Amino acid sequence: MKDILTSLPPYLKMENDELWLTEDDRENLKISYRIKEIIFSEQSPFQHVMILDSYDFGRMLVLDGVVQTTSIDGHIYNEMISHVPLQFHPSPKKVLIIGGGDCGAAREVAKYKHVEEIHMVEIDEKVVQSCKEHLPEVSGNLSDPRVRFIYTDGVAFVKDHANTYDVIIIDSSDPVGAAKELFSYSFYENIHRALKEDGMMVCQSQSPIFHKDILKQTYTNIRQLFPHASIYTATVPTYPGGLWSFTIGAKIPLSLPDTSSLPADTKYINDAILTQCFQLPQFMKTILS
Amino acid sequence: MKDILTSLPPYLKMENDELWLTEDDRENLKISYRIKEIIFSEQSPFQHVMILDSYDFGRMLVLDGVVQTTSIDGHIYNEMISHVPLQFHPSPKKVLIIGGGDCGAAREVAKYKHVEEIHMVEIDEKVVQSCKEHLPEVSGNLSDPRVRFIYTDGVAFVKDHANTYDVIIIDSSDPVGAAKELFSYSFYENIHRALKEDGMMVCQSQSPIFHKDILKQTYTNIRQLFPHASIYTATVPTYPGGLWSFTIGAKIPLSLPDTSSLPADTKYINDAILTQCFQLPQFMKTILS
Repeated sequence: MKDILTSLPPYLKMENDELWLTEDDRENLKISYRIKEIIFSEQSPFQHVMILDSYDFGRMLVLDGVVQTTSIDGHIYNEMISHVPLQFHPSPKKVLIIGGGDCGAAREVAKYKHVEEIHMVEIDEKVVQSCKEHLPEVSGNLSDPRVRFIYTDGVAFVKDHANTYDVIIIDSSDPVGAAKELFSYSFYENIHRALKEDGMMVCQSQSPIFHKDILKQTYTNIRQLFPHASIYTATVPTYPGGLWSFTIGAKIPLSLPDTSSLPADTKYINDAILTQCFQLPQFMKTILS
Repeated sequence: MKDILTSLPPYLKMENDELWLTEDDRENLKISYRIKEIIFSEQSPFQHVMILDSYDFGRMLVLDGVVQTTSIDGHIYNEMISHVPLQFHPSPKKVLIIGGGDCGAAREVAKYKHVEEIHMVEIDEKVVQSCKEHLPEVSGNLSDPRVRFIYTDGVAFVKDHANTYDVIIIDSSDPVGAAKELFSYSFYENIHRALKEDGMMVCQSQSPIFHKDILKQTYTNIRQLFPHASIYTATVPTYPGGLWSFTIGAKIPLSLPDTSSLPADTKYINDAILTQCFQLPQFMKTILS
């Protein structure tokens, strides 16, 4: 028994012969997932990376003990952060994804034949490699030749690429540690500069329930920099509170074409969701007013 | 220390001098809430009833150790289960609520001046009394003279009331134990009979993520009985997965008046949400097809 216990990765523990992951990054709420199998577990130069197979959510990417995406709901987040800007942009050819190590956003963007280049700037190669190999429900074993993986710091990268991209997708983790700067005003200034004159950006802007201040600050920053800014939501079951926000900033007005061109194989988004996702509950309007 | 431990209500435990409630009704997922204070704790003839003050969700109603509603999101559920049918019905005068012991649905219904009678049939008086006294954020200390509290079994009650109500709201807990029959075909038959000829019913039909089979069965039952049936969703943070479904069954076509008459003080629902809530994600359409 001692051998099993001492060989367990951090964040995991055995309880009555069952293996459990307990997320305890939050002070007052703990979520525990029963785990079937440890698929992958390694320390990268940046964080502790695991792929776990769980009973209720299928395989999950876990960074520093915190669940990032799962087989049963990764597509919701990835479809919503990708298809919304790609439907609104009149002609997206060159797309930059910052973060998005699970490869799910790149996978969705690659469904558009008219997109010519997808640059994926992720700091941690181990996340990309483990998701490509062990989390196919999210990554789709992404191997599209238009996707170029660039393993570097997204904050530094955008500084050097003015007037380059049609769409920039900021698919960051929570604003702690390395990801904190991805929520700063100066970062969005560089994003604005890296976009072409009809470009648009989107970022995940956290929970409208638990991170009201981050949502409000992000929206304020983006509205200051872009003439057109808007918030939309989706329900992502494994994120705290379920309800999640995304903020879009555009240099041109946000208008949909008469007929959408959503791929046929989406599992969450459809034509109706594409417009209704911008209708915010009353309490979100109050936060933002 | 021993005294404190032995005097703790069930479902609660002390850990490093912190008080925690752990929901473990599910086999493979546990959610633990840090608790500030035990406000109320008693065994009723039907279940164990607690009102707890938590750090992240404020005061919560906890039945047999499972969180039912909280101060921070109770209004979402209660607004959505009440205002949607009341907006669609052309002239709701007599409303029946089955369950709904937290008084939140009755509180919302009471906001309509043209509603003449609200019958609230709840099996457990202790739930109603404790919520009225200790959970004002949800119950609003409900004391409207149009509300008549009837402490009995909802299943038996509807059998004896044919052709009586304009709107019936089935605000049940999960389909286990006593609440199981509130999801049966024969119960919906009696609901149909208890409604007037232009009546409509709504029920909570569980999570589209974790209880696909219940949602599908509920929708199938209601569609068999009512000429008009439809599903809508809302995100309720403290329910597993966040995304929650409601199913409406109506004897007349579902159409909104030109101008809605939503009360001014809602925190979640507004005119846009009232229509967009019926736009289902693609995977829900797949479940229901």
